[in-house]
Amino acid sequence: MITNSKFFKKKKFVNLSDIFKIIKTDPIYKNKKIYDIKDLKNAKKNEISFINSIKYLDLLKKSNVKYVIVNKKHLDKIKNYCSPIPVQNVFISTAKITELFYPDSLDDTVDMFLSKPNIKIFNKIKFGHNVLIGKNVSIGKNTLIGHNTIIESNVIVGKNCVIGNNVLIKNSIIGNGVKILDGAVVGKKGFGFFPGSKKNLRIPHIGMVIIEDNVEIGCNNTIDRGSLSNTVIGYNTFIDNQVHIAHNVNIGKNCIITAQVGFAGSAKVGDNVSIGGQAGISGHLSIGNNVQIGGGSGVVKNIPDNSKVMGYPAKNIRNFLKENK
Amino acid sequence: MITNSKFFKKKKFVNLSDIFKIIKTDPIYKNKKIYDIKDLKNAKKNEISFINSIKYLDLLKKSNVKYVIVNKKHLDKIKNYCSPIPVQNVFISTAKITELFYPDSLDDTVDMFLSKPNIKIFNKIKFGHNVLIGKNVSIGKNTLIGHNTIIESNVIVGKNCVIGNNVLIKNSIIGNGVKILDGAVVGKKGFGFFPGSKKNLRIPHIGMVIIEDNVEIGCNNTIDRGSLSNTVIGYNTFIDNQVHIAHNVNIGKNCIITAQVGFAGSAKVGDNVSIGGQAGISGHLSIGNNVQIGGGSGVVKNIPDNSKVMGYPAKNIRNFLKENK
Amino acid sequence: MITNSKFFKKKKFVNLSDIFKIIKTDPIYKNKKIYDIKDLKNAKKNEISFINSIKYLDLLKKSNVKYVIVNKKHLDKIKNYCSPIPVQNVFISTAKITELFYPDSLDDTVDMFLSKPNIKIFNKIKFGHNVLIGKNVSIGKNTLIGHNTIIESNVIVGKNCVIGNNVLIKNSIIGNGVKILDGAVVGKKGFGFFPGSKKNLRIPHIGMVIIEDNVEIGCNNTIDRGSLSNTVIGYNTFIDNQVHIAHNVNIGKNCIITAQVGFAGSAKVGDNVSIGGQAGISGHLSIGNNVQIGGGSGVVKNIPDNSKVMGYPAKNIRNFLKENK
Repeated sequence: MITNSKFFKKKKFVNLSDIFKIIKTDPIYKNKKIYDIKDLKNAKKNEISFINSIKYLDLLKKSNVKYVIVNKKHLDKIKNYCSPIPVQNVFISTAKITELFYPDSLDDTVDMFLSKPNIKIFNKIKFGHNVLIGKNVSIGKNTLIGHNTIIESNVIVGKNCVIGNNVLIKNSIIGNGVKILDGAVVGKKGFGFFPGSKKNLRIPHIGMVIIEDNVEIGCNNTIDRGSLSNTVIGYNTFIDNQVHIAHNVNIGKNCIITAQVGFAGSAKVGDNVSIGGQAGISGHLSIGNNVQIGGGSGVVKNIPDNSKVMGYPAKNIRNFLKENK
Repeated sequence: MITNSKFFKKKKFVNLSDIFKIIKTDPIYKNKKIYDIKDLKNAKKNEISFINSIKYLDLLKKSNVKYVIVNKKHLDKIKNYCSPIPVQNVFISTAKITELFYPDSLDDTVDMFLSKPNIKIFNKIKFGHNVLIGKNVSIGKNTLIGHNTIIESNVIVGKNCVIGNNVLIKNSIIGNGVKILDGAVVGKKGFGFFPGSKKNLRIPHIGMVIIEDNVEIGCNNTIDRGSLSNTVIGYNTFIDNQVHIAHNVNIGKNCIITAQVGFAGSAKVGDNVSIGGQAGISGHLSIGNNVQIGGGSGVVKNIPDNSKVMGYPAKNIRNFLKENK
Repeated sequence: MITNSKFFKKKKFVNLSDIFKIIKTDPIYKNKKIYDIKDLKNAKKNEISFINSIKYLDLLKKSNVKYVIVNKKHLDKIKNYCSPIPVQNVFISTAKITELFYPDSLDDTVDMFLSKPNIKIFNKIKFGHNVLIGKNVSIGKNTLIGHNTIIESNVIVGKNCVIGNNVLIKNSIIGNGVKILDGAVVGKKGFGFFPGSKKNLRIPHIGMVIIEDNVEIGCNNTIDRGSLSNTVIGYNTFIDNQVHIAHNVNIGKNCIITAQVGFAGSAKVGDNVSIGGQAGISGHLSIGNNVQIGGGSGVVKNIPDNSKVMGYPAKNIRNFLKENK
């Protein structure tokens, strides 16, 4: 979850009465100042959260948050643990409330505050030709930024990094010793929206991309930032060319992800996982530690620690090989 | 089909006798002026067309076009409906005749007539740094063009669009409210040619890319223009990152196309179709309305309206799930 | 194998005693000057080579090279044909020795010696806007270099080529009549390293990309250079958009490779091979001449000449179609 993200301006607070208005519900609680919207894991007492599946009930039980958006049908199951706000569609209501707090978060326009790097500020950084840097960008020493590369406002890049040519970085925090190769696009909004027959309704994306130390991001990768939480690439993970990583994906440490792999939204991957070329990982599932996924696999359910899987849909690799002798 | 395309210079007319010469056939009709080459759906009386499969016979019956290129073996089936011109290979002959009409259409070189945007003409447009604009480009008001982006000559972009950074647009007509994200390449020639052991023979690509209102095109997408007809992306369709759309593909309205999907040439997709990540759609097939295609699927035949399919090759999703429990 | 590559500075020679030091082995031969490290096919008498699988024994028998890095367990099988240097891990030792000869080859940083093209030198070349050219670049006459394109130092581009916009070329030799379309990245280091839990160990990449005459490389392709040998794309081969070609891949003449195909490292492909969209070719395998591979296939073993295969894993296309009626 975002802590003090500078990427999106948040209103200091929102009135609970305005929240009821935006979700077109009669107010069932007295007005109060609400200070942010966060997921159950991170929301504090005076903030608002949401529960979109009853499998997250344990998170709710541990949370101090008071107000929680919930589907009407789950009302009974959660009412002992919070002050529920029942709605028809948790996602749509959450999106609308998020937009109240972060009015600029719906869209993902071009950063028009870019300029040539100020050599006085960035005197320990090497820049290629035609580099464009936004406002309040921080870059660590000995980092090299390649030709034609764009670093948008508020991005933080660590020291000893090599950022290649034609790279675009926005809404991201990049660790030390990271390499981002040519043509990668890091930090744009995710592919999340509510389909409408006249006009699709965008989901706000107030998350970031966090890239930990020593990571390598391949050429022409696309790594989307999170919607209400972050997209994270863990320490020393190496990613090959043309990989797509959707919003809210979390990848652990020391993973090896080969070319053209795709991760759907909110997939969670453990440490020391290796994934062969062109494999696809479905959304909202969990892959354990030390898992090996064969090239071309389509992973459609959770994979426990230490498994080797292959196939479409992916299964135990021994079974796959036996069936395909 | 192209109507008054400015993208490729057409000869005013071509003599039928020159058409017989280029396809190395003895003239079987008297000379006449022929004014264009189009597909059966669009060709008018004084133009020339072609029929490459007998499944298009109904289109021919409805058409007023007189001269039609046809494979020798289908001559008898069509001769009552037109003045047929029998050839060995419809595609090669059509390509050669198209080149007669459009001598510049074979190749797809770099537009050397670009310059910085003229702020006097484009006074209601916001431009990033290093934008390059071709001749006769039209851009609607309130549109924003990102950094390092190239809009080639004769392209039309509607109003209220956001074109990202490092985008290349050529031979295209873009509607209103369209978003084209960073690194996308829109409108280059398709991957169509006749293989030759010394040198492959290019198929002319005189089509355009037409992108209707409210469409979103993801990062690093590649959308090729049509050869003799257009590539079309319908109203309010949203496309995720790293999608490839080949020449002559037609996608309907309100579709949702997830990351890394690929469409082969001339695939036709209805309205309200959703396609999961990494799925592939074979060429020259037809997908109905309201179809759902699971991630990773390989679609190799036509899919009727309202179907849900998954698998490689794609089949009814219930059967797929049953077989893969 | 590289012959007189200018891309990486080689030490004139390395002492055999220093080689024993770097691989942490007691010297078993007298010191000597060693002039290069090459694969078995190319190594000369005074150079050093390596054998990582006993299936390459025939290459060793034909070779004049004296010193050969070998896994301890294969020592007996090769000792009659060379002066073997037994190690625990052939790849790691080879990487370390390569780094001795080529101290700059481990990393793949941005070329900081770029500048605008010198029109006096390149007076027969057409350049777009914002082109950046490295030192000692050679470009043949009538070649066109598109906007925002980068050609790094020592690259050779032939005559009559069209290099598109936003292209990056490094460590490559490009033939005549070649087309490289917009957004392609050619010649970066491959995705080769030895995983370490703290920090992965890079494999040196001293190979090049060699692109023969009349080849076409599609948009947003990524073609990695070789590690100890070259990546080669053969004469008149055409490659569609978004294709990934890993290090050391060799593709023959007159091949047709459709969009979104991926080749893993060291795959070898014959002449006249056609590969459908989104197919994946595993590493270190061999595909014969005149092979046809269906779209979406996953090729995991060698394919003999004149075969037609499809499926995941790929099998004879007749069997695939029979099983999937």
